[in-house]
Amino acid sequence: MKDKTFLMIPGPTPVPESVMLDIAKHPIGHRSPEFSSVLKEVYANLKYVFQTENDVFIFTSSGTGAMCAALENLVNEGDKVLSLVIGNFGNRWAKIAESRGAIVEKIEVSAGEVINPEVLKKRLAEDTNKEIKLVTLTHSETSTGAANDVKTLCSIIREHGALSVVDGVTSVCAMPCKPDEWGIDVLVSGSQKGFMIPPGLAFLTANERAWKVYEQCKHPSFYFDWAAHRKAVQGDTTPYTPAVNLIVGLNTALKMIKEEGIENVNARHKRHAMALRAAIRALNLQLLVPQDENASYAITSILPPDGITIPDIRKTLKKDYDIEVANGQNQLKDKIFRMGTLGFVCDRDLIASVGALEATLQKLGHKFTLGAGLQALITNLNK
Amino acid sequence: MKDKTFLMIPGPTPVPESVMLDIAKHPIGHRSPEFSSVLKEVYANLKYVFQTENDVFIFTSSGTGAMCAALENLVNEGDKVLSLVIGNFGNRWAKIAESRGAIVEKIEVSAGEVINPEVLKKRLAEDTNKEIKLVTLTHSETSTGAANDVKTLCSIIREHGALSVVDGVTSVCAMPCKPDEWGIDVLVSGSQKGFMIPPGLAFLTANERAWKVYEQCKHPSFYFDWAAHRKAVQGDTTPYTPAVNLIVGLNTALKMIKEEGIENVNARHKRHAMALRAAIRALNLQLLVPQDENASYAITSILPPDGITIPDIRKTLKKDYDIEVANGQNQLKDKIFRMGTLGFVCDRDLIASVGALEATLQKLGHKFTLGAGLQALITNLNK
Repeated sequence: MKDKTFLMIPGPTPVPESVMLDIAKHPIGHRSPEFSSVLKEVYANLKYVFQTENDVFIFTSSGTGAMCAALENLVNEGDKVLSLVIGNFGNRWAKIAESRGAIVEKIEVSAGEVINPEVLKKRLAEDTNKEIKLVTLTHSETSTGAANDVKTLCSIIREHGALSVVDGVTSVCAMPCKPDEWGIDVLVSGSQKGFMIPPGLAFLTANERAWKVYEQCKHPSFYFDWAAHRKAVQGDTTPYTPAVNLIVGLNTALKMIKEEGIENVNARHKRHAMALRAAIRALNLQLLVPQDENASYAITSILPPDGITIPDIRKTLKKDYDIEVANGQNQLKDKIFRMGTLGFVCDRDLIASVGALEATLQKLGHKFTLGAGLQALITNLNK
Repeated sequence: MKDKTFLMIPGPTPVPESVMLDIAKHPIGHRSPEFSSVLKEVYANLKYVFQTENDVFIFTSSGTGAMCAALENLVNEGDKVLSLVIGNFGNRWAKIAESRGAIVEKIEVSAGEVINPEVLKKRLAEDTNKEIKLVTLTHSETSTGAANDVKTLCSIIREHGALSVVDGVTSVCAMPCKPDEWGIDVLVSGSQKGFMIPPGLAFLTANERAWKVYEQCKHPSFYFDWAAHRKAVQGDTTPYTPAVNLIVGLNTALKMIKEEGIENVNARHKRHAMALRAAIRALNLQLLVPQDENASYAITSILPPDGITIPDIRKTLKKDYDIEVANGQNQLKDKIFRMGTLGFVCDRDLIASVGALEATLQKLGHKFTLGAGLQALITNLNK
């Protein structure tokens, strides 16, 4: 049906009506006292959501912009960067570091796997001259639905003395992610993910250790410059004209997150992801990330049954049931489909999605017990 | 009154209701066929508005982001850049070039003045070894309301062999600006200006001469990378997740501009700016840019009468008449106020603004003939 598509992709994600209506208001002046009072609340609530005492900067950009905002304020030509790659977005860190002239080494695993902390520990132990300045890693890998144990990995990186730079684009809000407690030095995220607003804003928080490296950066980014943003945060403003409407919407969305409580938001995502995984198994489908402990709470990647293609599944879900799920990226294209359970998602959405997936699979001739997915889903949701 | 503020600042500018309602629609998937068909129209209509045969890239960023997108794809450390500075935004080009390690020389004039083409010609003639690689300049200087003769300046730059990089943030749509015809090598603009949509998008177009310089750039920007954007335009997509809602709104706004006709849109801005200038003079107020031929059609900067302060004028206009005008920036703070006549502005808006300004000035004790401003305004509008 026209105007009926429900997004179950890993971003953009569903947006609450109240947020959409805020965004539809006429823009206000970005240097007005009204907008400053909005920003004051937003900056405070971002610190709550990011669970940090440090400032959280807002960029008008995609999440990739915030990734650039991290490395373009830290990396000098010739710096050694170790990139822990578990998918496309882990690889994006490596590409951005290379774009600034860094010498990049990767620890890379197959799609669906995560970084083994022992492998990282071993590699860093070999770096006896402490040449590795930065380690980049991904929390929830959007391209596979695998999630690294960021807490353990960052403690290993901290022990070595390098800086940890973490992509939390699809993890912040969806999964527990505690930069101050876990020793994440730089953490980035994006608005169209757990933040329940449309794409266009991205976030970064950095601690004092990261600021010391920033001070040695020869050519920090101008648009994403940390110092300009820190000064702006202190004055309840932004350095350049921001996406005013999206920030007004963000204010409402952050208040909703705060009201629900960040731990409850995390728990809701976990409950949804685990219930969906149980349903997928009950439908005789295979998960790209087999172990629950390696799974993102934001994205679930599913392999198609024999004889049924990803385009057929996606087309039927979209056309007959008005649900959009994502294809795999690059080498995973047509090998998996990805369901997002990220942001403004309730139990009813999960029930509808699993039900629609069952209806789709039956149409396409997959062999399974109709209702088995919903049974597993509901059993897990109601636990 | 609450919810009644009318923006007469140089951005954000008023947005048509149809555009706001488009923006309020639920985000669609940025990799969906629906969104590709939106982008296809948008890319085509941007070429129409920019009056160029070259691709126009869309960045999710402020206008400053597009300025970075220009220089961060062209400048190498040690390059010589000549910046023509007629205000804050001319100076921003210089700062961005410096942030990439360029050696920057400036030709700078006082606030309200423009670059004399003869001065540029003389300076470039002295550059016998052709060391100056890039010349940056501003079309409509948002901080002063002065506008350079870009056509003449760019022909001088072209003759010398350097690359011209032009800030058209507040000029594109408001003033004739013809990159292909005038030989502008790189031109940038922003969404919350003449494009009649909220802030959050910025644009860049570059010609083949600029691409040759890009190919020599050692560390092109990752987020703003031209090659990634060119490839995306060819596939009716964007390299990273864009501000989907703003692009859907942009599609509607561009169709409105096309329907009015870009020459008619330019002419409307000129008629408004010139009528406003006549009204300001009739109110015994002084213009920061005295000569009409140096004036932007987007922004008019006005000096306060003796004994009346800028904060008083702005406060009264806002509180009693629900009109927001801008203060001066930096050293011009509290020295001028700036009225934007940019984007979705009709004759009625001008009449209301000049009327409200008269009412404000009378309240604050300025000596003038009540009605004189409106008389001059309407006479000029009806010419």
